[in-house]
Amino acid sequence: MLTHFNNDGRAKMVDISEKNSSNRIAMAKSSIQMSRKVYEAIKNQNIKKGDVLSVAQVAGIMAAKQTSSLIPMCHPIPISGVNIDFEWKNVDEQIELMIKVEVKTVGKTGVEMEALTAASITALTIYDMCKAVDKSMIIGSTYLLEKSGGKNGDYKRS
Amino acid sequence: MLTHFNNDGRAKMVDISEKNSSNRIAMAKSSIQMSRKVYEAIKNQNIKKGDVLSVAQVAGIMAAKQTSSLIPMCHPIPISGVNIDFEWKNVDEQIELMIKVEVKTVGKTGVEMEALTAASITALTIYDMCKAVDKSMIIGSTYLLEKSGGKNGDYKRS
Amino acid sequence: MLTHFNNDGRAKMVDISEKNSSNRIAMAKSSIQMSRKVYEAIKNQNIKKGDVLSVAQVAGIMAAKQTSSLIPMCHPIPISGVNIDFEWKNVDEQIELMIKVEVKTVGKTGVEMEALTAASITALTIYDMCKAVDKSMIIGSTYLLEKSGGKNGDYKRS
Amino acid sequence: MLTHFNNDGRAKMVDISEKNSSNRIAMAKSSIQMSRKVYEAIKNQNIKKGDVLSVAQVAGIMAAKQTSSLIPMCHPIPISGVNIDFEWKNVDEQIELMIKVEVKTVGKTGVEMEALTAASITALTIYDMCKAVDKSMIIGSTYLLEKSGGKNGDYKRS
Amino acid sequence: MLTHFNNDGRAKMVDISEKNSSNRIAMAKSSIQMSRKVYEAIKNQNIKKGDVLSVAQVAGIMAAKQTSSLIPMCHPIPISGVNIDFEWKNVDEQIELMIKVEVKTVGKTGVEMEALTAASITALTIYDMCKAVDKSMIIGSTYLLEKSGGKNGDYKRS
Amino acid sequence: MLTHFNNDGRAKMVDISEKNSSNRIAMAKSSIQMSRKVYEAIKNQNIKKGDVLSVAQVAGIMAAKQTSSLIPMCHPIPISGVNIDFEWKNVDEQIELMIKVEVKTVGKTGVEMEALTAASITALTIYDMCKAVDKSMIIGSTYLLEKSGGKNGDYKRS
Repeated sequence: MLTHFNNDGRAKMVDISEKNSSNRIAMAKSSIQMSRKVYEAIKNQNIKKGDVLSVAQVAGIMAAKQTSSLIPMCHPIPISGVNIDFEWKNVDEQIELMIKVEVKTVGKTGVEMEALTAASITALTIYDMCKAVDKSMIIGSTYLLEKSGGKNGDYKRS
Repeated sequence: MLTHFNNDGRAKMVDISEKNSSNRIAMAKSSIQMSRKVYEAIKNQNIKKGDVLSVAQVAGIMAAKQTSSLIPMCHPIPISGVNIDFEWKNVDEQIELMIKVEVKTVGKTGVEMEALTAASITALTIYDMCKAVDKSMIIGSTYLLEKSGGKNGDYKRS
Repeated sequence: MLTHFNNDGRAKMVDISEKNSSNRIAMAKSSIQMSRKVYEAIKNQNIKKGDVLSVAQVAGIMAAKQTSSLIPMCHPIPISGVNIDFEWKNVDEQIELMIKVEVKTVGKTGVEMEALTAASITALTIYDMCKAVDKSMIIGSTYLLEKSGGKNGDYKRS
Repeated sequence: MLTHFNNDGRAKMVDISEKNSSNRIAMAKSSIQMSRKVYEAIKNQNIKKGDVLSVAQVAGIMAAKQTSSLIPMCHPIPISGVNIDFEWKNVDEQIELMIKVEVKTVGKTGVEMEALTAASITALTIYDMCKAVDKSMIIGSTYLLEKSGGKNGDYKRS
Repeated sequence: MLTHFNNDGRAKMVDISEKNSSNRIAMAKSSIQMSRKVYEAIKNQNIKKGDVLSVAQVAGIMAAKQTSSLIPMCHPIPISGVNIDFEWKNVDEQIELMIKVEVKTVGKTGVEMEALTAASITALTIYDMCKAVDKSMIIGSTYLLEKSGGKNGDYKRS
Repeated sequence: MLTHFNNDGRAKMVDISEKNSSNRIAMAKSSIQMSRKVYEAIKNQNIKKGDVLSVAQVAGIMAAKQTSSLIPMCHPIPISGVNIDFEWKNVDEQIELMIKVEVKTVGKTGVEMEALTAASITALTIYDMCKAVDKSMIIGSTYLLEKSGGKNGDYKRS
């Protein structure tokens, strides 16, 4: 059953007043696929003080804090920590940057949306900063890796 | 060359003062893959007055207007139109909702980021509203379909 | 006594550090009066998938979460639930849509402003979406119906 | 015809790319009805440096700038001026503060929503600052007084 | 050691999940130096109902609530009180307005950034409202006066 | 004369409808003074991929785009470029990081406030990221260096 609807069949923000606060963690993944040309532009910049990945990561962390303003039925939650990791995967001419986001809170509801939103905005920021080089980059699959905490039990992607 | 960096190698917002205003259009695509169970929950709700796709689409349109607050080096642009279309694709047990966003402006720079951000937030909102049913949904590839307007010429995904 | 002023007679955000967290509910009402022509435009749309009331209701829920950014002396509160109900009232040629908003929280201060703000933005969104048909719509009286929770006791409009 | 819907019957942000920029003005009205007790609390504060009406008016002006973030299908417009006037009306024990907002822009679409939103948030701020004295205040009718500019001609409330 | 960096040397939002909630207070100071001409413009306005300092103070209080949206690694905290005091200092032809901000919360981390951000935005608002008279105003030193609460102990500027 | 007040002596957003759009540039300066210990913490981090100055600079650029949401009477302007430069000044044990911001637009009003706000938020972000090392850092004088464009002529700090 979808829980986001009221008796008239209209959307509502589900009432979580009676849920207990607990420690919660969510991890999400996204990625961005790019040509070797874009990869090298990022890497060459990387050895200087500023770099594409730094900017993208700041954007991702700030976006985690905006999640409840962006996703209509999402509850506002006081995020207690965010970390974003990058890993390069290299297959022939096509290169993929893996983006992994971990968000923590102590609250009445989970932070899955915060982790997924941060991952998406991180990927979008990389697209923005490199699109002058090549517009054909693709943001890859974005999904929840795992979450823990809360009465509905943990989830781990199989 | 990455244009988003200043002489110290740090990020900057590129100066577009001298660029001309012109009519610009960008179209982006995203999708969300779900189990038949989620699909049916959405469809059954659909016949009532409110539905998941309506909420997601409002979220996408509102997100287009927040793009320059979310993407650090993105210029603020007065968006002049946004349209979001959905199409269901059905392959065996796995169902995919295709999300297509068109954004228009008359401005000094393109609206690729606005279209991509709207597409991502639309998909994330569907995830949020259905995650009580199944957390394993996957947001599929997100990319630019085409853009027109501006001195760098048009782009069309091949 | 107005409590929102400091010793110099200037506005301040009242200190609620010592107040206890408790379950709180507020209900507010607004409405929008329209001609039969606007009413029928809304109703005819209604049988399709998207409708004016769906969009307005999403706007109202999202506005509830922005209340402390809009109302200067309002404390930020983690809203735990929002529901918006509509009811049509039909008097001769003039038709009125009643808007009722319920907001819940567990916090140190009430959610009256969240409920009132959501009701106002819901009505304004309906105005926006129908103003191409008729600009003479009137947003009717907007007020608090009742609130419960907190040490000052409950309030119920007589 | 409602213009805010696409071919699937879903909401869209109407395309205004082809509309011309012109000087536009909109004036909206709201009010707040209060008991003599609230009126006197406001008036007594008024003679000090800060006052309820000052705060409310700053809130109204700032809200005008947030309109397109609050109203889903509203186009972002660069507001070029906002003025808010107050007038007291006194009938027996019931006192009403009239709120009149004028918003100006040079743009492709009108500023009716900006004027109406500013009027509503001004009234809500007064409610917020005085609700410790009396929660039974009522925000009165909120509507468009007049607008000028744009190809659809002027509107003046009769 | 800087705590805002992860194992890859990239910025993260520090995890405060395990910290206890406690009463916390922070006080910050800023100032704005102005010519006698600007001072008199402010003072003459002051005797009317609206004044520069009122507007600046509303801006400062509202900015305190936006701190975690502005400062990337700053945790969102539910502020429970804000007060801003002004004091004039007069040295020959040069006049300085001292701005003192006190912010309170009950939370897992301090409100130093909220107090400092409010002080800065208060000063910037005064600059904005008086810059038509004289653009040479200087916003003076901005710093933390003291903070209390939290396991790291109190701080008081010597 | 202060131009930000209406006939009742209340604040208003000045009407700029009749002003012409022109190329405008503003440059502002701020700084942050720190102990050698903080300086070394920043510098040691600097050689890794992420660094304090990168994060601060992203924050400054994003804050420039939020200026009209933060400063009540400030007009929304479509910023066309932002650049932030840092320079270290070293006097005995006390070290000062100079922050210089340049903002450009093509618009009806200047970008002085955007440049000053970006400079302040850049400095505040550095404070935030280093305050675990030492809370006694001081944000130094913040002022306009120069501006050009607009009918009131250029300004250059003497």
